[in-house]
Amino acid sequence: MASRTATKLVHPDRTQLRFTTVLAALGDPVRLAIVARLADAEPDGELACTTFALSVSKSTQSGHFRVLREAGVIRQRDEGTRRLNRLRRDDIDDRFPGLLDLAIRHGRDMLADW
Amino acid sequence: MASRTATKLVHPDRTQLRFTTVLAALGDPVRLAIVARLADAEPDGELACTTFALSVSKSTQSGHFRVLREAGVIRQRDEGTRRLNRLRRDDIDDRFPGLLDLAIRHGRDMLADW
Repeated sequence: MASRTATKLVHPDRTQLRFTTVLAALGDPVRLAIVARLADAEPDGELACTTFALSVSKSTQSGHFRVLREAGVIRQRDEGTRRLNRLRRDDIDDRFPGLLDLAIRHGRDMLADW
Repeated sequence: MASRTATKLVHPDRTQLRFTTVLAALGDPVRLAIVARLADAEPDGELACTTFALSVSKSTQSGHFRVLREAGVIRQRDEGTRRLNRLRRDDIDDRFPGLLDLAIRHGRDMLADW
């Protein structure tokens, strides 16, 4: 997939993370669900975008992953035709201690209700 | 101000508060600054909208207060021509323990940098 491998995946440095941007990224039910799923795949877990059976269109789903990546919540990398995702737990925990655990806890509750 | 006193200020019940809606409400620099200022006015503190010297237009500022109220982060009431605001700390702490303290801490850091 030339179009995919040609895409440069930009990630903010840890020092560039902004609290309000991270909150806004987590402040959406679909994105919070993605974060909770990724948390369940830790510590080694990387999950391909295609493994998330979210009830939104593919382009909407891609947009949600992009928001999370640009906020610094997840790290994405391409491997062949798959785009893999993992939480940037160390970075978020370092900059905003307690936030990710709080978000994951509520995200899991939300997943359980779905 | 007839137009103001005619406005019914709707507040969600504690049980209606949604984690992602609260995160999204807090995920904006101006709104986080408002929350940090209100926190400094606690425990008795109510602050009139006009006491917030925010670098945004009056209508934009009103919109930010509305987002916070509709998310359940603040309670608003009109007294004469003034609209008074206070944090709904008990409600947020009950539903999402730890979130408000985290937000206030980062909001104060942000205010200090302004």
